[in-house]
Amino acid sequence: MKKKLSPLAYSRQPKMAVELKVPLKSKEDLSLAYTPGIAAVAKLTAKNPAATFRYTFRRNNLAVISEGSAVLGLGNIGHFGAYPVMEGKAMLFKKFANIDAIPLVVKTQDPDEFIRVVENIADSFAAINLEDIAAPNCFYIEEKLKKKLSIPVMHDDQHGTATVVLAAVLNALTLFPKKGKKTRIVIVGAGAAGLAIAELLLHYGFKNLILVDSRGIISSKRPDLNFYKKRLSKITNPENICCSLPDALKGADIFIGVSRAGVLKPEWIGLMNSQPLVIAMANPVPEIMPEEAKKAGAALVATGRSDFPNQVNNALAFPGIFRAAIDYRKQINEKMLLAAAKAIVNYHRSRLSSSNLMPSILDPRVHQVIARAVGKVCS
Amino acid sequence: MKKKLSPLAYSRQPKMAVELKVPLKSKEDLSLAYTPGIAAVAKLTAKNPAATFRYTFRRNNLAVISEGSAVLGLGNIGHFGAYPVMEGKAMLFKKFANIDAIPLVVKTQDPDEFIRVVENIADSFAAINLEDIAAPNCFYIEEKLKKKLSIPVMHDDQHGTATVVLAAVLNALTLFPKKGKKTRIVIVGAGAAGLAIAELLLHYGFKNLILVDSRGIISSKRPDLNFYKKRLSKITNPENICCSLPDALKGADIFIGVSRAGVLKPEWIGLMNSQPLVIAMANPVPEIMPEEAKKAGAALVATGRSDFPNQVNNALAFPGIFRAAIDYRKQINEKMLLAAAKAIVNYHRSRLSSSNLMPSILDPRVHQVIARAVGKVCS
Repeated sequence: MKKKLSPLAYSRQPKMAVELKVPLKSKEDLSLAYTPGIAAVAKLTAKNPAATFRYTFRRNNLAVISEGSAVLGLGNIGHFGAYPVMEGKAMLFKKFANIDAIPLVVKTQDPDEFIRVVENIADSFAAINLEDIAAPNCFYIEEKLKKKLSIPVMHDDQHGTATVVLAAVLNALTLFPKKGKKTRIVIVGAGAAGLAIAELLLHYGFKNLILVDSRGIISSKRPDLNFYKKRLSKITNPENICCSLPDALKGADIFIGVSRAGVLKPEWIGLMNSQPLVIAMANPVPEIMPEEAKKAGAALVATGRSDFPNQVNNALAFPGIFRAAIDYRKQINEKMLLAAAKAIVNYHRSRLSSSNLMPSILDPRVHQVIARAVGKVCS
Repeated sequence: MKKKLSPLAYSRQPKMAVELKVPLKSKEDLSLAYTPGIAAVAKLTAKNPAATFRYTFRRNNLAVISEGSAVLGLGNIGHFGAYPVMEGKAMLFKKFANIDAIPLVVKTQDPDEFIRVVENIADSFAAINLEDIAAPNCFYIEEKLKKKLSIPVMHDDQHGTATVVLAAVLNALTLFPKKGKKTRIVIVGAGAAGLAIAELLLHYGFKNLILVDSRGIISSKRPDLNFYKKRLSKITNPENICCSLPDALKGADIFIGVSRAGVLKPEWIGLMNSQPLVIAMANPVPEIMPEEAKKAGAALVATGRSDFPNQVNNALAFPGIFRAAIDYRKQINEKMLLAAAKAIVNYHRSRLSSSNLMPSILDPRVHQVIARAVGKVCS
């Protein structure tokens, strides 16, 4: 058996590399790969920029970009801390979607300067995966870049997470049917992931969402909301429920946590409707540990972790979404996210159980199925 | 025999790719390459940025960057036109120096904004090869970036060219000895390459250089010089020779052309000292065709082209220089360029002839020899 490596020892070895796909052995090879032959390609792409997608590395080149303001659960540790995470994500892109992804970190955390930098280098890439950028800057940055750039852009912490959570919710509701689109869903955490989950669930058609941030339930009465929370305050919490998380949980069907360890007290699960469903995504320690939640009456518990059953992991969504977006050269939109979520649900239907809520990200077929489904709404 | 591809057909196939160097097959692999294992690496690099050189892809990752203002001999064709050339160069880096190089183009041609962009992304790379940037911006950009960044930076059009030209001059002088460091050398073209060649020849110790630009000989009397030409006007042309190229060539020993096709008239070669040496680097058509130069009395002719004998090609210099600069994490300086030029000369000594002036860039050993020689002056 192979010796188990520590995370640091593992990363001391080269994990990815650039490799040539054509031989460079003769003068003739060189004259095609570089001068003088490359001049013909340069003239073509100068005249017709879109030819870069057909004649160059750009065709399949994605940048995984961060400025390090919200790295994993480690917070604002800066761009040097973000770099290894971007590399890891680039590896997943290659493995699951055969995308040539490269890690890239940007020094500035000023959102406008960050946008200028990305805009200036974007023509080198087929797509851009924004990563680990803190709210609310992440919303502003993504919105602006989507407008400015003609290539697909997605902040995965938002939309990759939203996509897999929607799939998890749909699967959970297949196992434990509730009130359909009127199911009451409480989302705790109103950062990048929380707001994107709310948007996508609303887009899917759910009508009764309650968002809760560190100061309590988000309602139209709250005077302290940023632009993005305010926007959501108008279309969530239809009964205008006030105050704190336990108030939101009274009569709720589903708890979704994208906040921090220990936020969900076991006794509060008793406040929820019968057969309450718990998706506790805080990383590395979930809002409630699965054992505790079960003991307190949860009918189903999912987390973000691979060492518990029912892992809800965005690595299930982003490879296929970007594969399709790159292949169809299509800006990523909610229709594509919905298609990805539904593809996950359909693919997993025959294997679905309360201890097997989601497909494994190691199943290569699931990524192909998602890419195909997303591709269908691209064309 | 393989069918000969056109340059466009050649570039329609994928020429380079990102590849994984470790398997990603099990949950354990994933937990080391990405979360949760990567958090340990992220914490380390956040605290100690230099650890990115030991634990991440950055260790061997070079960016070949242009804004497209002087692409090959095609002029200012913009960043889309530059992209295929950057990719070709990245391939040579991989082939000759095993450097994981990626092509990157920047939209802006404003030098200060370009500098800001590169500065903002530089912490993703082990080194930066600036490429195909027009003079005089290339001087300003390189100077500023070398000051601002702690990683090696080199504008190859300047210093790669200067290095191989110095090696070619030294080899030519071994075959046809002249007046040692007092040899009169005329450099035609005072852009990126011409000025860098002059600087390096001066640094080596040559005392009698004459630079010629499109308006004539550069002397301290010329009122129309930019900052960079002015600086050189003070340390070249010691006899204060005036006027045009033929005036400069009277009594000259070596002609170096980095200008454009046809600049050197055959009859002017007769103005030079006996056994005149001609290094005509304009691309794709040299300042004079080798046959013509020979007929007019040149003792030796070299060009930048692979289809004539005596190719003087910067691909001989930049792989080894950057290999050493990355391995020793050392800013590139003139000492390193001199070491590279001398390594080329030493390596080729036993094979040197007037029809075999330089080693072949396809000889893998020459790049290793250069890297080793440059490494010695790094430590």
